[in-house]
Amino acid sequence: MPRTLTEPGAEELSSLKAWTLSSDGRSLRRSIEFVNFGEAFAFMTRVAMRAEQLDHHPDWANVWRRVDIRLSTHDTGGITNLDVQLARFIDSIAPPPPLP
Amino acid sequence: MPRTLTEPGAEELSSLKAWTLSSDGRSLRRSIEFVNFGEAFAFMTRVAMRAEQLDHHPDWANVWRRVDIRLSTHDTGGITNLDVQLARFIDSIAPPPPLP
Repeated sequence: MPRTLTEPGAEELSSLKAWTLSSDGRSLRRSIEFVNFGEAFAFMTRVAMRAEQLDHHPDWANVWRRVDIRLSTHDTGGITNLDVQLARFIDSIAPPPPLP
Repeated sequence: MPRTLTEPGAEELSSLKAWTLSSDGRSLRRSIEFVNFGEAFAFMTRVAMRAEQLDHHPDWANVWRRVDIRLSTHDTGGITNLDVQLARFIDSIAPPPPLP
């Protein structure tokens, strides 16, 4: 069954406070620092399993204890409900972002 | 106990046929494609565990079924025996590179 892809509204996007909208508005970005590589990779493993459930995967990079994540939907070339779902899951398991 | 870091010789580097030496000679790169995200992440998990054993970690990125790996040693700013060890491990578990 094809999935319904919807574009989140501005209010929903701005509720994702830990995420940065790319300048072209087509992706969400978040960088997260962990205490060490093991914690970073444990986080990635949980996100990977959720991504498989959603059949929607992040573009991400890892350097030691840092993970840089980019969310976007290939099929639409922009941000969809799937990105918002994955972002909310990531926020639920990530350490809180540093205070501004 | 501090680890002994040595620089591999040209012959040892050129034996890593699946890897590309960066233009500054300070890192090794390899991109690997898997059949799907699950296989890509299973590979990353095995590399992550080996990296923890070696206490030497890759810089890497993953987009769906592709993994881009960069190996370099922070302490020396170049390629060392640790990178060669990790590269050989990766080669031992990765699918064979495409024919040239």
